[in-house]
Amino acid sequence: MSQLRGAAIFGQSGGPTSVINASASGVIQEALKQECITAVYGAAHGIKGVLDEMFYDMSKEDTYELDLLKTTPSSALGSVRYKLKNAEDDETDYKRLVEVFKKYDIRYFFYNGGNDSMDTCNKVSKYMQKVGYECRVMGVPKTIDNDLFGTDHCPGYASAAKYVATSTMEVYHDARVYDTGMITILEVMGRNAGWLTAATALAAYKGNGPDLIYLPELPFDMDKFLEDVQRIYKQNGKVIVAVSEGAKTADGKYIAELGADLGKDAFGHAQLGGTASVLANIVKQKTGAKVRGIEFSLLQRCAAHVGSLTDVNEAFWAGQMAVRYAVEGKTDYMVAFEREEGAEYKCKIKLLNLTDVANTEKKIPREWINAEGNGLTEDFIKYALPLIQGESKPELEDGLPRFARLKKVLATK
Amino acid sequence: MSQLRGAAIFGQSGGPTSVINASASGVIQEALKQECITAVYGAAHGIKGVLDEMFYDMSKEDTYELDLLKTTPSSALGSVRYKLKNAEDDETDYKRLVEVFKKYDIRYFFYNGGNDSMDTCNKVSKYMQKVGYECRVMGVPKTIDNDLFGTDHCPGYASAAKYVATSTMEVYHDARVYDTGMITILEVMGRNAGWLTAATALAAYKGNGPDLIYLPELPFDMDKFLEDVQRIYKQNGKVIVAVSEGAKTADGKYIAELGADLGKDAFGHAQLGGTASVLANIVKQKTGAKVRGIEFSLLQRCAAHVGSLTDVNEAFWAGQMAVRYAVEGKTDYMVAFEREEGAEYKCKIKLLNLTDVANTEKKIPREWINAEGNGLTEDFIKYALPLIQGESKPELEDGLPRFARLKKVLATK
Repeated sequence: MSQLRGAAIFGQSGGPTSVINASASGVIQEALKQECITAVYGAAHGIKGVLDEMFYDMSKEDTYELDLLKTTPSSALGSVRYKLKNAEDDETDYKRLVEVFKKYDIRYFFYNGGNDSMDTCNKVSKYMQKVGYECRVMGVPKTIDNDLFGTDHCPGYASAAKYVATSTMEVYHDARVYDTGMITILEVMGRNAGWLTAATALAAYKGNGPDLIYLPELPFDMDKFLEDVQRIYKQNGKVIVAVSEGAKTADGKYIAELGADLGKDAFGHAQLGGTASVLANIVKQKTGAKVRGIEFSLLQRCAAHVGSLTDVNEAFWAGQMAVRYAVEGKTDYMVAFEREEGAEYKCKIKLLNLTDVANTEKKIPREWINAEGNGLTEDFIKYALPLIQGESKPELEDGLPRFARLKKVLATK
Repeated sequence: MSQLRGAAIFGQSGGPTSVINASASGVIQEALKQECITAVYGAAHGIKGVLDEMFYDMSKEDTYELDLLKTTPSSALGSVRYKLKNAEDDETDYKRLVEVFKKYDIRYFFYNGGNDSMDTCNKVSKYMQKVGYECRVMGVPKTIDNDLFGTDHCPGYASAAKYVATSTMEVYHDARVYDTGMITILEVMGRNAGWLTAATALAAYKGNGPDLIYLPELPFDMDKFLEDVQRIYKQNGKVIVAVSEGAKTADGKYIAELGADLGKDAFGHAQLGGTASVLANIVKQKTGAKVRGIEFSLLQRCAAHVGSLTDVNEAFWAGQMAVRYAVEGKTDYMVAFEREEGAEYKCKIKLLNLTDVANTEKKIPREWINAEGNGLTEDFIKYALPLIQGESKPELEDGLPRFARLKKVLATK
């Protein structure tokens, strides 16, 4: 394959994770090493930064800070939720991209994100091919939702899962200290796929987890749910429930939306709030028990202080390999993981066509959910447990995280 | 001082912390070593377990598990919120206590908790003195609220503070990834004292913290608050606010209660929820910005995975010293910390009269809060930073915490 000389640009897109910067570290440090890559730019706020010609010269950064990116949560370069129109409908953005690419001689485009970001990456790739602008395009996966097609798992998932499982185990202990009844409802992120909510099953596997787990993969049956909760409450006096923010009733309504219909208070007022808070109110009215709703909220996707080292290393590796493959001549792919056979956990990297990945969601297989639809099977534990192994946490300064501080020197031309 | 032979009983009381079990470990292991202590009992659910004759024989536990208590959050023996009546009004409980103490020859009573628990401890102490039943009574402090009188700080506070500061730093990064406006409101525990909310100032000190901090020590002025938020929002597009769950308006209303008055939605419905959620709704209406309320909820008081080693060691030490002092003949005291002079942080243990400690609250001095009432001064940082030093976390098994598992063999007689 012919060697392609030119600049590289890297962007982060979609909801951040605690390891997306580890992939950034991998891409940037590897790109800086490659002789054929003449400049390495970090786009401010993903594709928007490219369109706006707002990007940073990564060669100006200290290696020490680039290393610290491995344990710095969120998107250091800034993220974006921006959907490129179809080129057939509107070429404006694409023409602008070609203009910017030409101006800076950009020949390598690395894009780090989830489903929507892979759609962006795919569209850029196909357009550059169409107009004959030579550019190697590689997607680097990330999402705490773990719902990208074709890859064993996604960087970002395991660290969020480790946080969720650890915190669930801690709350389990806290929520049973009194000799009075108590029902606790944990709300976990994941709009369409239940991978992260399922991570609470790891806590249950360790004997310190929820009694009931509800995923968005199956319709949420309020009557069955209340029956389940009341049965366990009667038996044990303590119930812990984990529920996905994306759980929906059979007629397609999110639980949070049910607040307005079901959860009227004594004055007929609608109850507002998230899934946990709506369910907590309904359960309180039904049982009279003390009920507490807990939302892991943003905490679950930025908890770098209890990251999975496996995840951090793989995220870095995915970024690094995206660059190496591109330099070798590969383009139009997303880097993905394939788990190898055998008792010991091992993954290798494979490449997936961007077209196949863009906008396709991977959900939890039905057979990994128990028959009753309120828990996970051993298969899920076998899948998830290896991913959360190893401890990653930031360097500390005065007992608190020392996160990367980038200079962010704007590139000009 | 004469040596007193007899059994010891230990109870945990009030809201749990991530280090109250470290104190349990200190009391129990030290008591098991003392020759004059003939049996060591752990009361199930504090004083209620004593009244109900429900306590465990701690000599039946493995030392390994007792050691694991140091990093096991929540109250392993079970906690309680039970207020003893004044003996002058009703002696029933006290007579029962004397009965149980005599039956088991209990001569040492150790009680671990916050303000209310020290009240219980004090009442037990005074009653036993009054009826001439010889028993050494010692309180061991704990509370994430850090509001116990006369002690430099309370075990449990520093670990919660470390969690809150660390998580705030992480959320700080997450809450500014997009190039659109965002206001984030963090709700921290502490009904009457703002020590834990103030811990977010440690994150600010590291450059990754809230712009505004509101404590219950000062009346919450909604107009000033909205002015503050809007000013910073206009300047930076991003605002992070930390607010205590106990913040109250000048006329004594909790913010959460304001939901019903101020926070009506478009249909005139009252908004329910906690402090962060009520404030988030009000700010959203006022600014039109994207606003997110985050409650640290139970997570902040049970996060043993990011504990302060200083805190864990001191909690253990406080328990240990309570036993040693009691064996030496001291009674009717609470163990407390006194910070020594000098650049390096060092604490010694002192004893406080239970009468002085019971029901007295310690708040943040006015001069540690800035003039505007929306932040902390350097004095607070100097006070709090040494407390969160050192890393404590549980042993891991498969990448997840291995918490203590007690046998809990019921004592009988």
